[in-house]
Amino acid sequence: MNAPIRVAVTGAAGNIGYALLFRLAAGDCYGKDQPVILQLLEIPQGMKALEGVVMELMDSAFPLLHGIEISDDANKAFKGANQAFLVGSRPRTKEMSRADLIMANGPIFVGQGKALAAHAASDLRVLVVGNPCNTNALIAMHAGREVPRVRWHAMTRLDENRAKAQIAAKVGAVPGAVSNMGIWGNHSDTMFPDFRHAKVNGKAVTGLCDRTWLETDFVKTVATRGKAIIEARGASSAASAASAAIDHMSSLWHGTAAGDFTSMAVCSNGAYGVPEGLIFSYPVTAKAGDWQVVAGLDQDAFGNARIANTIKELESERDTVKDLLA
Amino acid sequence: MNAPIRVAVTGAAGNIGYALLFRLAAGDCYGKDQPVILQLLEIPQGMKALEGVVMELMDSAFPLLHGIEISDDANKAFKGANQAFLVGSRPRTKEMSRADLIMANGPIFVGQGKALAAHAASDLRVLVVGNPCNTNALIAMHAGREVPRVRWHAMTRLDENRAKAQIAAKVGAVPGAVSNMGIWGNHSDTMFPDFRHAKVNGKAVTGLCDRTWLETDFVKTVATRGKAIIEARGASSAASAASAAIDHMSSLWHGTAAGDFTSMAVCSNGAYGVPEGLIFSYPVTAKAGDWQVVAGLDQDAFGNARIANTIKELESERDTVKDLLA
Repeated sequence: MNAPIRVAVTGAAGNIGYALLFRLAAGDCYGKDQPVILQLLEIPQGMKALEGVVMELMDSAFPLLHGIEISDDANKAFKGANQAFLVGSRPRTKEMSRADLIMANGPIFVGQGKALAAHAASDLRVLVVGNPCNTNALIAMHAGREVPRVRWHAMTRLDENRAKAQIAAKVGAVPGAVSNMGIWGNHSDTMFPDFRHAKVNGKAVTGLCDRTWLETDFVKTVATRGKAIIEARGASSAASAASAAIDHMSSLWHGTAAGDFTSMAVCSNGAYGVPEGLIFSYPVTAKAGDWQVVAGLDQDAFGNARIANTIKELESERDTVKDLLA
Repeated sequence: MNAPIRVAVTGAAGNIGYALLFRLAAGDCYGKDQPVILQLLEIPQGMKALEGVVMELMDSAFPLLHGIEISDDANKAFKGANQAFLVGSRPRTKEMSRADLIMANGPIFVGQGKALAAHAASDLRVLVVGNPCNTNALIAMHAGREVPRVRWHAMTRLDENRAKAQIAAKVGAVPGAVSNMGIWGNHSDTMFPDFRHAKVNGKAVTGLCDRTWLETDFVKTVATRGKAIIEARGASSAASAASAAIDHMSSLWHGTAAGDFTSMAVCSNGAYGVPEGLIFSYPVTAKAGDWQVVAGLDQDAFGNARIANTIKELESERDTVKDLLA
């Protein structure tokens, strides 16, 4: 059994938090030999519900759960954190534009970025799940500049998983048969689910699926899946978002399989012509907490246009929050 | 990789179902080499929400999830099922007595017992989670009499886990250090969390904890924990109930550790003077889908009185539903 790691989770009493915490405590992310201490952050009005969640975590008697701490102060919740899941964010209300939403979340992620830089462990890795996650991660990275840029992540694994599910259903395979499914760009409807390099049981998806379907229905279904879930469930994606967060951090911790890759939104160093410093989703390989953008993935006109468009959106989001990036 | 097993879950779109399905699909119950096909039952008015849950299960691209089927007809949902989690039940409303609740659930479990006997696989194991779970299991067992009596279970693992958590917190140990924590009787506030045989790191709990605390606060906290969760969360236990269901069926599947035991409510064969045929929680060991009541556990006056009292309650519940046990 390893020494326990400290895992911070924000928005811990929310629906994604509730789906995430029990899987973290069960060993689904870091494995059955890795105990965790959960450090949970909520806003003051969420603390009572969080106490109930803590009771249920205790009541599950998870052998790997070596401690639970709660706070409404990021400076306490992030103390010594090795891993951080930034799940909590201001939800979008009806009258809000995307720009309004971005600005409403800015101060939260400035505060959390600073608190992480001041209090987290030196091996910290951060995954931003709260939306708009790419730009929230950008803000936190700037506010917490003492933490190396490669440590800040935003989540597009949910898009990747959704893309795998659509391909699997289309060709009648199990989702685990789909590999090399990269997501490019922003976690929004401009992202590009890269069918050009995806495989089913090692065979190119482009040889198995109709090109028109891939360019139209497939891309659209993946891009608008969040809305479809809300319509069916009457509530937004929670367990699938939590599952994708587990997958992202698990891939980073345990590494990606040989020959396969996954999707992580990380700070661009200019690869593939993406402006340096944007938090941009790339196909990546991972090993022992570090990642590398997959090299040499060519695109055709369709892919290039999608990627150019999602870059444009991320640049516009960055411009919206430029005062927070000083 | 093994051949997939068929796992039926009722009340699949409810809160416990939502917490349970993703963990079943992630391999938390049957292990990382055991694919599952989920067969989900809901009442007609729950089917739309269930479709949303299915979308999220798909969107998690679980490698072990080899299929999902949904129905509002138990005869379809239980077809070929190897394992069944009967989670759905009528919840108790304010004006209902426990007897009213028992009678309201009767017809559901008559129907499901018959459907399981008619359609499930020959190696079926059933866990009733929906309350009052002991008596619901009794009703289903009688209605599905073609299924051997040893295959019907009701869940007291949540009480066991709660008891372990209280002991662990009291002595400052991790919950995984607490073993041999048996629950006797009914999954209700009459159950007896058997501290007399429980251990922390191999040492008797009775030597580590004050006897008065064990007989009063400890027993009471475990017995009334469900209510305390509702007060804190504003919602009843869901993820911890799902986690206990995973633990129960996982212990049955993988077996209990040497020297340890767990708690399962199963059909009494008269052991420890419990009337034959009651669904009664005992300390048991398990191996490859079968269980055995732990022999030779002596009780003192306190334990004997608790056990006599919970037997009395279960007999009274049985009398309430006697017309359904023909």
